[in-house]
Amino acid sequence: MAEQIGELEGLIRDERLRDLRIALDQLNTGDIVDFLERLGVKDRAVTFRLLPKDTAVEVFDMLDQSLQHEIIEGLKDGDVAHFFESLDPDDRVRLMDEMPASVARKMMRHLDPRERSLTNIVLGYPDGTIGRQMSPEFVAIPEHWSVKQALEKIRRVGADAETVYTLPVVDRARLLKGVVSLRQLMVTGEETVISSIMSEADSVDADHEAEDAARRCADRKHLAMPVTDKEHRVVGIFTVDDALDILERAESEDAARHGGAEPLHRPYLSTPVLQIMRSRIVWLFVLALGATLTVQVLDTFEETLEQAVVLALFVPLLIGTGGNVGNQAATTITRALALGDVTTRDAFKVLWSEARVGITLGATLGVLGFVVAGLAYDWETSAVIGLTLLSICTLAASTGGLMPLLAKKLGADPAVFANPFITTFVDATGLIVYFMIAMAVLGL
Amino acid sequence: MAEQIGELEGLIRDERLRDLRIALDQLNTGDIVDFLERLGVKDRAVTFRLLPKDTAVEVFDMLDQSLQHEIIEGLKDGDVAHFFESLDPDDRVRLMDEMPASVARKMMRHLDPRERSLTNIVLGYPDGTIGRQMSPEFVAIPEHWSVKQALEKIRRVGADAETVYTLPVVDRARLLKGVVSLRQLMVTGEETVISSIMSEADSVDADHEAEDAARRCADRKHLAMPVTDKEHRVVGIFTVDDALDILERAESEDAARHGGAEPLHRPYLSTPVLQIMRSRIVWLFVLALGATLTVQVLDTFEETLEQAVVLALFVPLLIGTGGNVGNQAATTITRALALGDVTTRDAFKVLWSEARVGITLGATLGVLGFVVAGLAYDWETSAVIGLTLLSICTLAASTGGLMPLLAKKLGADPAVFANPFITTFVDATGLIVYFMIAMAVLGL
Repeated sequence: MAEQIGELEGLIRDERLRDLRIALDQLNTGDIVDFLERLGVKDRAVTFRLLPKDTAVEVFDMLDQSLQHEIIEGLKDGDVAHFFESLDPDDRVRLMDEMPASVARKMMRHLDPRERSLTNIVLGYPDGTIGRQMSPEFVAIPEHWSVKQALEKIRRVGADAETVYTLPVVDRARLLKGVVSLRQLMVTGEETVISSIMSEADSVDADHEAEDAARRCADRKHLAMPVTDKEHRVVGIFTVDDALDILERAESEDAARHGGAEPLHRPYLSTPVLQIMRSRIVWLFVLALGATLTVQVLDTFEETLEQAVVLALFVPLLIGTGGNVGNQAATTITRALALGDVTTRDAFKVLWSEARVGITLGATLGVLGFVVAGLAYDWETSAVIGLTLLSICTLAASTGGLMPLLAKKLGADPAVFANPFITTFVDATGLIVYFMIAMAVLGL
Repeated sequence: MAEQIGELEGLIRDERLRDLRIALDQLNTGDIVDFLERLGVKDRAVTFRLLPKDTAVEVFDMLDQSLQHEIIEGLKDGDVAHFFESLDPDDRVRLMDEMPASVARKMMRHLDPRERSLTNIVLGYPDGTIGRQMSPEFVAIPEHWSVKQALEKIRRVGADAETVYTLPVVDRARLLKGVVSLRQLMVTGEETVISSIMSEADSVDADHEAEDAARRCADRKHLAMPVTDKEHRVVGIFTVDDALDILERAESEDAARHGGAEPLHRPYLSTPVLQIMRSRIVWLFVLALGATLTVQVLDTFEETLEQAVVLALFVPLLIGTGGNVGNQAATTITRALALGDVTTRDAFKVLWSEARVGITLGATLGVLGFVVAGLAYDWETSAVIGLTLLSICTLAASTGGLMPLLAKKLGADPAVFANPFITTFVDATGLIVYFMIAMAVLGL
């Protein structure tokens, strides 16, 4: 694939479109999507128009919403309606969220009534809920039916449904009673009644947070989960590939914010430099503002510094180590929160663990630092270094462990809040601890 | 669930096992797994033994391998064989990897011949390949069969297979010719020949790296992918839930290493403090060793520092900002690499993007720093700060962007290599740049 990409990019550069069309024919849909994601807006539009109609629809379905949006902008109205119609209702709603409201409304008017009403069901749930991400095209099986009746229904309507592998079982009032898998239907006698083979449904409320629902679907290895309304009536289904999309988006956001930047929401190579810069500058500015705290702390202790310039030499090492210990703790707890291994109720357990981990780490590094600094400088300075390492590590691990829980409790995203801020906090408090210990030990 | 957990933990503490058994009956399998993952080794063994046999088997299947291993250690030999046999061949192999070789061999001897030979197929592939993670229990359909024949085969053997939703289509030599989904079979006429409805197979070689195969499966929304040998014969199938397991494990590792620690490979609350400490100390030590570079750099410039102690005040701010910019770039590129949006061949494109991003960020922060420091201190010092910010940001973004690519090229994990080391590198080089600029501007 890697060499092919170079070739294809060469064909675009040389505007050999006929050869490009032939080369694209050799690729499968996934490879074409990977290729399009690398191109700039203009080259992408040109390449997209070379695809045969069927392939184009498939490729369009698999693209990021931001790229779908750009491609649609470059197409004629008739084609736009065609691609818009080809999407599933849930994907359609996500694309609409990217478009200006007036364009979205116009597109909705072009849809046939059935597709429009399905799309409206999804549109009825607020952003960020699983209702907004589910598909309303599910196949429900009444509990009193036989396996034979169920299989016949699947044959009849299966082609249009989101999935036919996990089927919600309902009573006469459409209340969810259980689920049955197509595999069970296949391996069971035709006269068997559905209610006797269905299993308990692990369903999710339409108002439930999308990311949490996706995590549950992935964790519990469901191919699909029924989505219900407040009365426990089935309103949609939500499949593992939707869950994967949601989780990937969430992980990308977490990864970006963890690194102190806003997520790009689109493939790197197709993102303009200015947009990358904008995704970073705000965070950078906030963190730099936080870091002015360290300037103020050091300013306060400037006299001490003048008396013992040697103290300045260890500043990056000490606050760096504090930041590392804090990051380790924050990362561990953030991940444990995301996986549901700890909850905000476990604050004391986490504090108790992290404080002990911090003291152990601090004692180990402290002794080491004491010996090394003692040999290189003098034993008084090295006592300051050793004691500071012990204190900073304990402080950093404890706050690092608690911060993600605090963020969660306050309704903020732990991944955003914890790591970038822990460094700022540990830097400032660590310096205060350092100079207090130095003044006490050195008698300044 | 959160309140229930508190209650259940109370029942364990008070040793009210009868009530605990009743309470466990109210939970679904997923909830029981979540609960067990919070407990210590002893409590987990006690609770596990209270489960009805069927539930126990289901729960056992869903637990982490490390916890399965501990539970098995506490069971009698007969029960061990039972749980071992209940696992799918691929899960069995992963559990065996956790056990001492002698125990694993003994368990293998207890298996019935069919299960043993299936397990041996998986064992034949090296660790880290998709062959080691696939299931050898697939349902292959000959291409010349009719839909009716295919459906009959699924009815007959479907109960034991890993999946019946994605079916590899093979010729008489068992070579992979395509795939057909059960949904297609359901909605197509019974007399249709398979070869006329199958679609192109997106398959993966058994020797292929597991994480890469999992990423492809998830990216392209396959429910399952056929696994083939070098002759393109089908040897197994690999489902999206295996892909999810592999990716979750990989993300946990990346997250941990990103934060400068080794992954725990088990739920946080069930991990002993000493193990947490061990997962962090080595990294911490390596990073602290790297940070001694900063001590040496500062030591070299000690004279300059003594002449202008004010320079020391900005050290944490400057190297902190450099670290932040480097981390932003490294995080973005690491993520883009993981998603396949960039490859190591894109090094120049990445460098060109990141250098421009770095200069823009540096110019913005530099002007800001110049004005603020100028107002608070003097304009000469502030010129040093502004110029240093510009240089450090450019340097940090460029190296931050290139490092993950370099790591990948060298066969190291970009997530491990890039972020922790970028800070160390930027700290040391940033300080050198700072003092060089200071000496030039201030004429020291």
